[in-house]
Amino acid sequence: MLVVVSAPSGAGKTTLCREVRKVAKGLAYSISYTTRPPRPGEVDGVDFHFVGETVFRAMVEGGEFAEWAVVHGNLYGTSARTLEGTQERGEDLLLDIDTQGARQLRKRHPEGCYVFVVAPSMEELEARLRERRSDAPEEIARRMARAREEIASWREYDYLIVNRRLDEAVRQLGCIIEAERGRTSRLSLELPDLDLPGEGRRS
Amino acid sequence: MLVVVSAPSGAGKTTLCREVRKVAKGLAYSISYTTRPPRPGEVDGVDFHFVGETVFRAMVEGGEFAEWAVVHGNLYGTSARTLEGTQERGEDLLLDIDTQGARQLRKRHPEGCYVFVVAPSMEELEARLRERRSDAPEEIARRMARAREEIASWREYDYLIVNRRLDEAVRQLGCIIEAERGRTSRLSLELPDLDLPGEGRRS
Repeated sequence: MLVVVSAPSGAGKTTLCREVRKVAKGLAYSISYTTRPPRPGEVDGVDFHFVGETVFRAMVEGGEFAEWAVVHGNLYGTSARTLEGTQERGEDLLLDIDTQGARQLRKRHPEGCYVFVVAPSMEELEARLRERRSDAPEEIARRMARAREEIASWREYDYLIVNRRLDEAVRQLGCIIEAERGRTSRLSLELPDLDLPGEGRRS
Repeated sequence: MLVVVSAPSGAGKTTLCREVRKVAKGLAYSISYTTRPPRPGEVDGVDFHFVGETVFRAMVEGGEFAEWAVVHGNLYGTSARTLEGTQERGEDLLLDIDTQGARQLRKRHPEGCYVFVVAPSMEELEARLRERRSDAPEEIARRMARAREEIASWREYDYLIVNRRLDEAVRQLGCIIEAERGRTSRLSLELPDLDLPGEGRRS
């Protein structure tokens, strides 16, 4: 199962994804490739694969991305190999990607679980972007404008999380993952000892 | 939102429904009408509305049931008024009903959340029925035969809970309810302060 999480910058998506991995067992994480320079504290190969634009473009040409998009002038992409690998192993994969990338994935993986995260209000979103202090005022204005565009696509997602408090949002995302794992439409080989009559197991 | 829980007799559905109401906030419970005599400890108006067959049949004639069915020779029904009342008040309603009743409700309320509960195996189900001691051997055999029929319809449901341990099953059902409350398809009036652009609120 793919769990795709999108959110406007500042809604708390990155922290939420990090925290939910501590709670939800058996959830792999897709480390995106990006041409954006690392922020303080970000580690190459952990938070992102940081690459130059030439490398990124070559990967695009080589068909190495399951999705890729331009966000705030930087390139972001998801490794197709990561996606295929976790699917082959039957693992669940958490992806932290923007609305454009999610749209691309949804076409090929409509069975995925798509979650949109928002701050409780636009004012709160702006306040959070200011608190981050890593962005210049014009960058904040740019992110707010883009946030409005992104939020407009929330109905394309299966679930909406209003991130008022981190612990509640983490619990909610954890619940979505746990609930989705019990969807009958996902259950095929996963009923080993039930001896169900009727339709029974699909293999 | 309607949360409909079905399970073969002995799978632990009644206990599960009772426990999840302690965990999930804002969840009303639909007390079924039945012609079955009360078991030890069952309270009229709390566990069931216990009525005679004449009263039940009159209610059927009067269109007072949203669904009704014959289960193990007894009549069971859900009050249409209860259903309408909670929907008008925008409450979530938990219903503990059999597969026939669930099928009737699904036709009129496909947007509801349908959960099927099973014991980990048929052997375990039979052991649980025996432990209950309230049923005679022929009654147990009858319930097991019916269980096989009911389990065959598990794919009609949205979610499957394998009740290995009560606390885990309670947590899982609680998660399903919490996750479903955040489904974008259910969110219409429930975004009071988000000031979402684009499609915005539906009212």
